[in-house]
Amino acid sequence: MNNFTFYSPTCFVFGRETENQAGSLVRRFGGTRVLIHYGGGSALRSGLIDRVRASLEGEGISSVLLGGVQPNPRSGLVYSGIDLCRSEGIDFILAVGGGSVIDSAKAIAAGTVYDGDFWDFYCGKRIEKALPVGTVLTISAAGSEGSPDSVITKEEGMFKRGASGDAVRPRFSVLNPALTETLPPHQTAAGITDIMAHLYERYLTNTAEVEVTDRLIEALLLTMIHEGPRVIADPHNYDARANIMWAGMMAHNNSCGVGRSQDWNSHNIEHELSALYDCAHGAGLAVTMPAVFSYVMEHDVMRFAQAAVRVWGCSMDFRHPEVTARAGIEAFRNFLVSIGMPKNFEELGAKEEDIPALVHALCWGNGRQGSISGFVTLNEEDCGKIYRMMV
Amino acid sequence: MNNFTFYSPTCFVFGRETENQAGSLVRRFGGTRVLIHYGGGSALRSGLIDRVRASLEGEGISSVLLGGVQPNPRSGLVYSGIDLCRSEGIDFILAVGGGSVIDSAKAIAAGTVYDGDFWDFYCGKRIEKALPVGTVLTISAAGSEGSPDSVITKEEGMFKRGASGDAVRPRFSVLNPALTETLPPHQTAAGITDIMAHLYERYLTNTAEVEVTDRLIEALLLTMIHEGPRVIADPHNYDARANIMWAGMMAHNNSCGVGRSQDWNSHNIEHELSALYDCAHGAGLAVTMPAVFSYVMEHDVMRFAQAAVRVWGCSMDFRHPEVTARAGIEAFRNFLVSIGMPKNFEELGAKEEDIPALVHALCWGNGRQGSISGFVTLNEEDCGKIYRMMV
Repeated sequence: MNNFTFYSPTCFVFGRETENQAGSLVRRFGGTRVLIHYGGGSALRSGLIDRVRASLEGEGISSVLLGGVQPNPRSGLVYSGIDLCRSEGIDFILAVGGGSVIDSAKAIAAGTVYDGDFWDFYCGKRIEKALPVGTVLTISAAGSEGSPDSVITKEEGMFKRGASGDAVRPRFSVLNPALTETLPPHQTAAGITDIMAHLYERYLTNTAEVEVTDRLIEALLLTMIHEGPRVIADPHNYDARANIMWAGMMAHNNSCGVGRSQDWNSHNIEHELSALYDCAHGAGLAVTMPAVFSYVMEHDVMRFAQAAVRVWGCSMDFRHPEVTARAGIEAFRNFLVSIGMPKNFEELGAKEEDIPALVHALCWGNGRQGSISGFVTLNEEDCGKIYRMMV
Repeated sequence: MNNFTFYSPTCFVFGRETENQAGSLVRRFGGTRVLIHYGGGSALRSGLIDRVRASLEGEGISSVLLGGVQPNPRSGLVYSGIDLCRSEGIDFILAVGGGSVIDSAKAIAAGTVYDGDFWDFYCGKRIEKALPVGTVLTISAAGSEGSPDSVITKEEGMFKRGASGDAVRPRFSVLNPALTETLPPHQTAAGITDIMAHLYERYLTNTAEVEVTDRLIEALLLTMIHEGPRVIADPHNYDARANIMWAGMMAHNNSCGVGRSQDWNSHNIEHELSALYDCAHGAGLAVTMPAVFSYVMEHDVMRFAQAAVRVWGCSMDFRHPEVTARAGIEAFRNFLVSIGMPKNFEELGAKEEDIPALVHALCWGNGRQGSISGFVTLNEEDCGKIYRMMV
């Protein structure tokens, strides 16, 4: 195991009606004037924003609203949010929504107290300082409620890139599984896929002897396999929603990824798809992961065989472990299709003729030097082959 | 899943030579004058205390030493520590040792800033305020490095009781697996047993539909089953030590126990044994758990069958699940014996004739009203039967 530091000082308040504690939580973590950041109108229409605002007002805390965050959140709104925070004297940002809203809130939080362009953080500069952020989560997917990470798409060039820093770890996150019951099935399934991707990205490691994190990742994957179909069959299954919500946080706060190298090539390859086609990130990952895994499987057949046996219940073919490894990837693909995820470019809305542009953006965009690295280093030719496997 | 709050703001610094970061960590978390609390002479003899002290001095931080913590730490030293902290103007307590040292440090931390008798906290009063505590861990076992809990034995009456409060969660914990390589095999095995007990106490729940925490607990048990024998066979297997150390923290910081009722009857039943015979807590648990589990198995046969299949690799007897459940308990007992743990009163150094006194102390001591409650409520008769099963 590699040396590491793990610091997750987020206070998670989990369960029914916990959004009514938003006011006392903001007060506890020092906020006095709040930007409530949200996405489309559903948080308004459902009355969630009203309940959160009432909770703040109950503590004598004033707030300003900034809605309009899109899936695959854009830099334009981040710049507006930074201006608003500065002009309104905001000292706390409360994200009410899913990963896109939280990521946008984190970008605004970092940008407000930074003299330069906030995009610097998305070109590799570590976030060292930010306004405090809290969240009221409405989608189990990105894990941003417990992570130091944020992903934003820059409109000029449509680059989708990530930034990180403990300063943007949420001070608190309110996790009420009931808030996710009204999501359309496609969004629920895309969230499930995203959570499983966060687990596989950590599973694909080149660090030896990491049994504890292997087992934790497998545990969370097994949870998703059990609960995913149950929540697709019955969107109002609170317990299934609850198990998925905690798994989604645990999948990405890195308690199961410490001390090991991680992959993240599937995320990088997918980011070009959602940047170009504005598809759901999880849907893009559903198409991307089986292709990537099949392409890199030979790098460590036994790791894929282990996942096949321990997670997917495949029988081990001791003479031909690659058969078992492949069966595990196939079982994963079938699972994703069973919950309603797309399986190829066509179903995703992507186009074969765009592959050269996708490869170029992936391997050369935003400072990259012709390849992406992770479990395996992939050059332009590799990436082109992988995109073509998805057609 | 039940509503819950999970807040684990401890900074874990993990890996080789990380004890040399103690000084910068104390500074980061606000300490200027430190009590270094430790146990027997091994931390001194090995040079660990010198290295930690040098690290503090490197940051210009002065320190006072207080050693002598025994296994099953006593209230007497806590009172001395409180006096010392007050007279020396201590503002940070650094525990260098295992769970006993850390628990003693937490008691001193709470008692120093409390007007009454610190034992109030061990009679049910929540710890709301304490000096900040940091740890340099030398034994994987108690999980106190990441928990809000502390267990102390009061000399008058030899009551062993627990206290809890977020105020005594360590600000940081330095986890260097190499520091555990010199432990005698019996202590290593007792630590493994304690970690597995923390997992089983959470596993035995009456809360339905808690797949995510079931799976996480199983993952950590599987890790212990894999790594336990490896570290007993080769005490210098750093990777096995590392996996056990992270599993030990995760087993008890409650990330795998949230939102579900928990048992803790095995701990309560064992505490009377280590209080009376001063045996290693883990050794006592090794004798206690199989008896308790066999006694309460019928309360939820399917839960024990699930553990048998998922954790111990037993085949499911679908017509007679109780056979599978029993096989899982037997497999656990055999595992504990295989790593060198005792299997009965005699091997533990306990005496059958003390059972009435053990039962009385357990069921009536320190404010209890004739029974203990958890997965199943156990009265005096039940507890007597359980102790007799261990003979």
